Amino acid sequence: MSPPQSTVYFRVLYADTDQMQTYYNARVLEWFERGRNELLRELGKAYRLWEESGIMLPVREVWVRFEGRAEYDDRLKLDTSVSMPSKAQIRFDCRIEQADSGQAVCHGHTVHAIVSEMGRPVRPPGWLVELIAG
Amino acid sequence: MSPPQSTVYFRVLYADTDQMQTYYNARVLEWFERGRNELLRELGKAYRLWEESGIMLPVREVWVRFEGRAEYDDRLKLDTSVSMPSKAQIRFDCRIEQADSGQAVCHGHTVHAIVSEMGRPVRPPGWLVELIAG
Amino acid sequence: MSPPQSTVYFRVLYADTDQMQTYYNARVLEWFERGRNELLRELGKAYRLWEESGIMLPVREVWVRFEGRAEYDDRLKLDTSVSMPSKAQIRFDCRIEQADSGQAVCHGHTVHAIVSEMGRPVRPPGWLVELIAG
Amino acid sequence: MSPPQSTVYFRVLYADTDQMQTYYNARVLEWFERGRNELLRELGKAYRLWEESGIMLPVREVWVRFEGRAEYDDRLKLDTSVSMPSKAQIRFDCRIEQADSGQAVCHGHTVHAIVSEMGRPVRPPGWLVELIAG
Repeated sequence: MSPPQSTVYFRVLYADTDQMQTYYNARVLEWFERGRNELLRELGKAYRLWEESGIMLPVREVWVRFEGRAEYDDRLKLDTSVSMPSKAQIRFDCRIEQADSGQAVCHGHTVHAIVSEMGRPVRPPGWLVELIAG
Repeated sequence: MSPPQSTVYFRVLYADTDQMQTYYNARVLEWFERGRNELLRELGKAYRLWEESGIMLPVREVWVRFEGRAEYDDRLKLDTSVSMPSKAQIRFDCRIEQADSGQAVCHGHTVHAIVSEMGRPVRPPGWLVELIAG
Repeated sequence: MSPPQSTVYFRVLYADTDQMQTYYNARVLEWFERGRNELLRELGKAYRLWEESGIMLPVREVWVRFEGRAEYDDRLKLDTSVSMPSKAQIRFDCRIEQADSGQAVCHGHTVHAIVSEMGRPVRPPGWLVELIAG
Repeated sequence: MSPPQSTVYFRVLYADTDQMQTYYNARVLEWFERGRNELLRELGKAYRLWEESGIMLPVREVWVRFEGRAEYDDRLKLDTSVSMPSKAQIRFDCRIEQADSGQAVCHGHTVHAIVSEMGRPVRPPGWLVELIAG
């Protein structure tokens, strides 16, 4: 079974660019956030509701490989999938490409701990495992 | 008596630039934040301590006029002064110029409400009035 | 005749929030950029094409009044309209409210010069006046 | 011989925080940029001058591990070192900790290609190799 996945489209803002006339590296992590927000919403439980259930997913690790340019107003396609590499972690894999040409822009992942509101590691509740691991 | 004032110097990052090869407009509001943080610290009570005293200063209004370019790695000079236009508000005036040439970059102000942790307007305590209004 | 207008909807990211648990003031200027980009696209000529026609619209002035909170994942509605206060300027007025409740979040405007690629003021071409001033 | 290194100190802004009351993950990449800018300046040739020499260092890869909290106004210490993993790449390793307690905040690295203004890979000039590899 393939992992849960979703796709969002968006355009590069001036705010995303830098003087090399392409996107600034840090902005990718905001795009990744948008991708995982929408994936969890589509899976049926928006991250806001995770927090209301007492589950927080602080970022523990990020990795990005930058592959191609994306200029102001380019329309980008962001694919996000989610998995559980262990009982204690959730991982989102993201891939961004030019929506029109399919040319690679960047890809990477974020790894998140599963903790309580107090920041303590918690055993993932049943709904979470079912949502992610199917 | 002139209003309390302080000066900070900083350099433009790639993160601050956009594809027009000058600073992106929103970044100025982060620079203004740095200016007012340092001014309050120099006055003797860092804003972090204001919050610990139960006083919050949410931004109610910002205004900026953009006057000149600032490119990557330019060294900028930011002057900030503070005043109380009324019993209910604190205002910071900021001016940014090129540190070397003195050429104007931008200037503006932010207006802040004086509220409790619950977001309710509060009468400014004595220490606050003394700090700002001398 | 009412001025050209458009509406976009978006959700608040963690990236937009700060420790007061509402949106950070500078992020509003990025939202305003999104609004004017989409308005110009809907009017029939995306800003990217303005630049290809040799017309740049650097920001000369911004003003924002902050009216209400917007928390992580709140869905916001942004209305943008455009006008020409003079032959040399274009102005965008923006209003953001909670999409569900209609509660005010903030409103403001940006004023832009009309310049050439070299940064020199230019007489607005016919297509521009027709697009904005109808 | 130990690799070239430098240290900068800075404070967390409200702009850096999110509603978890610690720094937002993407902001770390801006801090890393500050670190490598200052390191290259201290080594004797600011990155601005690299670009004037026709050498660009676009980011090809970033990796960050998040270890601890950093709240608004915390004073942080950022150590950056630089190395050349190959003739075609420059790598910056960054470590951020609480300036007072030494508690770990995060660490990571960025890997950069060495390219011409046209974006083509170039053989690193002598001054570059001497600067980095000593």
